[in-house]
Amino acid sequence: MNQGRQLYQHSLTLLTDLYQLTMAYGYWKSGMADKEAVFNMFFRRNPFQGGYTIACGLAHVVEFLQYFQFSEDDLAYLDTLTGNDDQPLFEPDFLKYLRNLRFTCDIDAIPEGTAVFPQEPMLRIKGPILQCQLLETPILNILNFQSLIATKAARIVQVTKGEPILEFGLRRAQGIDGGLTASRAAYIGGCAATSNVLAGKLFNIPVKGTHAHSWIMSFDTELEAFETYAKVMPNNCIFLVDTYDSIEGVKKAIQVGKQLKAKGYKMAGIRLDSGDLAYLSIEARKLLDEAGFQEASILASNDLDENIINSLKNQGATINVWGVGTKLVTAYDQPALGGVYKLAAIRNDQDEWDYKIKLSEQVIKISTPGIQQVRRYHNGNGFIADMIYDTESFVSNRSSVMIDPMDYTKRRKLDNSAPYEDLLVPVFREGKLIYELPPIEAIKERVQGQLSMFHEGIKRFANPHIYPVGLEKNLYDFKTNLILKLRNLKTEAEEV
Amino acid sequence: MNQGRQLYQHSLTLLTDLYQLTMAYGYWKSGMADKEAVFNMFFRRNPFQGGYTIACGLAHVVEFLQYFQFSEDDLAYLDTLTGNDDQPLFEPDFLKYLRNLRFTCDIDAIPEGTAVFPQEPMLRIKGPILQCQLLETPILNILNFQSLIATKAARIVQVTKGEPILEFGLRRAQGIDGGLTASRAAYIGGCAATSNVLAGKLFNIPVKGTHAHSWIMSFDTELEAFETYAKVMPNNCIFLVDTYDSIEGVKKAIQVGKQLKAKGYKMAGIRLDSGDLAYLSIEARKLLDEAGFQEASILASNDLDENIINSLKNQGATINVWGVGTKLVTAYDQPALGGVYKLAAIRNDQDEWDYKIKLSEQVIKISTPGIQQVRRYHNGNGFIADMIYDTESFVSNRSSVMIDPMDYTKRRKLDNSAPYEDLLVPVFREGKLIYELPPIEAIKERVQGQLSMFHEGIKRFANPHIYPVGLEKNLYDFKTNLILKLRNLKTEAEEV
Repeated sequence: MNQGRQLYQHSLTLLTDLYQLTMAYGYWKSGMADKEAVFNMFFRRNPFQGGYTIACGLAHVVEFLQYFQFSEDDLAYLDTLTGNDDQPLFEPDFLKYLRNLRFTCDIDAIPEGTAVFPQEPMLRIKGPILQCQLLETPILNILNFQSLIATKAARIVQVTKGEPILEFGLRRAQGIDGGLTASRAAYIGGCAATSNVLAGKLFNIPVKGTHAHSWIMSFDTELEAFETYAKVMPNNCIFLVDTYDSIEGVKKAIQVGKQLKAKGYKMAGIRLDSGDLAYLSIEARKLLDEAGFQEASILASNDLDENIINSLKNQGATINVWGVGTKLVTAYDQPALGGVYKLAAIRNDQDEWDYKIKLSEQVIKISTPGIQQVRRYHNGNGFIADMIYDTESFVSNRSSVMIDPMDYTKRRKLDNSAPYEDLLVPVFREGKLIYELPPIEAIKERVQGQLSMFHEGIKRFANPHIYPVGLEKNLYDFKTNLILKLRNLKTEAEEV
Repeated sequence: MNQGRQLYQHSLTLLTDLYQLTMAYGYWKSGMADKEAVFNMFFRRNPFQGGYTIACGLAHVVEFLQYFQFSEDDLAYLDTLTGNDDQPLFEPDFLKYLRNLRFTCDIDAIPEGTAVFPQEPMLRIKGPILQCQLLETPILNILNFQSLIATKAARIVQVTKGEPILEFGLRRAQGIDGGLTASRAAYIGGCAATSNVLAGKLFNIPVKGTHAHSWIMSFDTELEAFETYAKVMPNNCIFLVDTYDSIEGVKKAIQVGKQLKAKGYKMAGIRLDSGDLAYLSIEARKLLDEAGFQEASILASNDLDENIINSLKNQGATINVWGVGTKLVTAYDQPALGGVYKLAAIRNDQDEWDYKIKLSEQVIKISTPGIQQVRRYHNGNGFIADMIYDTESFVSNRSSVMIDPMDYTKRRKLDNSAPYEDLLVPVFREGKLIYELPPIEAIKERVQGQLSMFHEGIKRFANPHIYPVGLEKNLYDFKTNLILKLRNLKTEAEEV
């Protein structure tokens, strides 16, 4: 794996919220530390008002967990923390306990690059409740952000329809690995390359880039700047033409392109970075074609995202390489995926699972209990529906009917003979990694493979079709009864 | 300094855009590598449609520069890169040059915690153009993000008027140090504490937190959950009351609060995390007061930002501790500050400065030439205006008139006898750090000290008053003539 651990020398085990540690202390003090629990990580809405989400970040969760261990330095720090009474927050025996704590949970997760939908567990963890609790924050931090960016990239790929997208976002990214992990997720989502050299090195992503305005400005004339660049790197020439006047810039690029041609080289293209990109690209294409540079690319950048690219294409822009930065790496129109991590079951003293839910006035915020798996059904043409079911109960009594968790009246009978795939795969067993992380190219291919299997309506930007996701009927009924019980209402059975 | 270098074991020197390296190669190949240049980092608009920006991130720029050096590993990676012809992008002698490259520039910068405004250089770098070029991307990455978050935090502090704000954003932050550096910047901007334990450890920030819904759900009843927590941490009790029903939760918190009181402890407060926070906080306050818990805090969280907090206060909410997360650490309504880094001067073969600008159709996008400094004038009551001037030219002929770079008709005569401060301070000289980085508490205090010196109108959220920033008249005239010359128009003097 070449996924970035070499970046950090510091133990990241403290990368969590303090309340995870105070709760851990509470579990430990009250003898509950080793109670077996199940938590699910899922989100409630697709980002960007879109119809799908691309799962991304599992490789970094794996890496985090493999190095999970409190260092002496971490423990010394925790020892300095105090409560409201200025007394130590944690007693020394708890810190001793943390010193010896090792990750021993089971994890099942949906592989990176898979299209996922609201309510589906992207990651399921089973193990001592104290460990599950400490891991909530880093798991959410990693999966939320990378899934968000991979999804954004996949949307942009939809509109460029195969034309390469270069990710240029590092300078506006949210922090150093806000940039690094965005570059990885953007590549997985479908970008062709990044400008981020360290991301290229760490994650094995192609890197691209030529020159900036400052290169042009450091010479007396634009022509001299182009000529010098062409002399130095004759096979890497995409000339930035908008430093002074874009159309004049194109003419000078052509002049230097002819010089390159005379020497047996090829001008790769020109780049527009400001102004009316539709108009300028059309004019530039004319000039380039007239001069015999039909193969020269027109690269454009300047606050692009899927909507602006769509609009440029509708205006007949002749851009065929797209530089995207800020709006991709920060997911500008929705900079956070609201993934959550909810307790779904806990083993009681009789060694049985007690299923758990979090109530809410809003039905979308009520969690689903159980040790969940997602079954994706397909027919010859593509995916037709996902059913969330419980892996432990109702095994002998599993229904072929699924019910929309948001709407009792939306139900669907599935053809049990239809082919299917269970999406969550075993990743850790008792703390041991048993999953082979796929290479980044395979993850990237999986994204496009997955998306090709969904109906076009699901990929539409405006009011996308909602892909059917339901709870297996027995799980749905069980959840409903649990809600009624917690609200001190009679269950349906009792009402009869 | 305790600012996070211990986080990274990897050389971050490759944390730049590839085009910085191809331009560096170009400068080196064409004998320009050591040409002295000046670049300024500045932004064009305050974020969040606000009236000010808080400078933040310099400590991490300093740290980055102190470790700036290509590792053997970095060079081996660069050696693998190829151009469009599949030949090596860089020749071996250039990699040898990079192996021996050390940071030798001068840097002047505005200290962290200072309020800054559009067009003002937050950081100025002077040195060999090759080095300045390589450093563009990391400098922008660090200063853009941290300044954005410090500004967001300062705005939230404005509305809570002294009531503590706890930053809870890690789980939705953009990557690991998207979270870590957001915690630092949020604290500098005025937050009282963070939930992020690693940020607490690395940056010496207070950490806070009690328990989550999963704690409550892991017990058979809410009451048992509160009682167990109270037993374990009697002096750190803020009970989360909304797992099942918020008002019922408050009643149970009161029950346990009385048990605590009987044992000589104090319930610190309750926390609301969903529902109608205005209504619930008013009802909770009544219940708490009636039961003798007048001192118990009401902490609220749930997608809060300055606008929602303002609205809650207008509705009479009795919340007095504010938990903010996603919307602060991602700067949700504007997740990037558009800071840029522009070449402003280059020393010519006659050892004189050639001043440089980037043209644009949009006047706001035309950069300002010169080796700039910002002079902030004040009177007895506060700051009155900032003048950007050139430190090298016009020294004997400096005007006391400043002109708005966006509007020729907006000009202001400054009282030369008024007290002033020059904002940029020396940080590096010939690569050597000569600036003592202030402790984080001093930076935090500087923010509030600075903001207290501006007219209230500048801090208003809706259509804030625009703080006067101008170019010293000679610099303005010089810039104008340079624009006209580059557009092949006559200068004003020539027209006469």
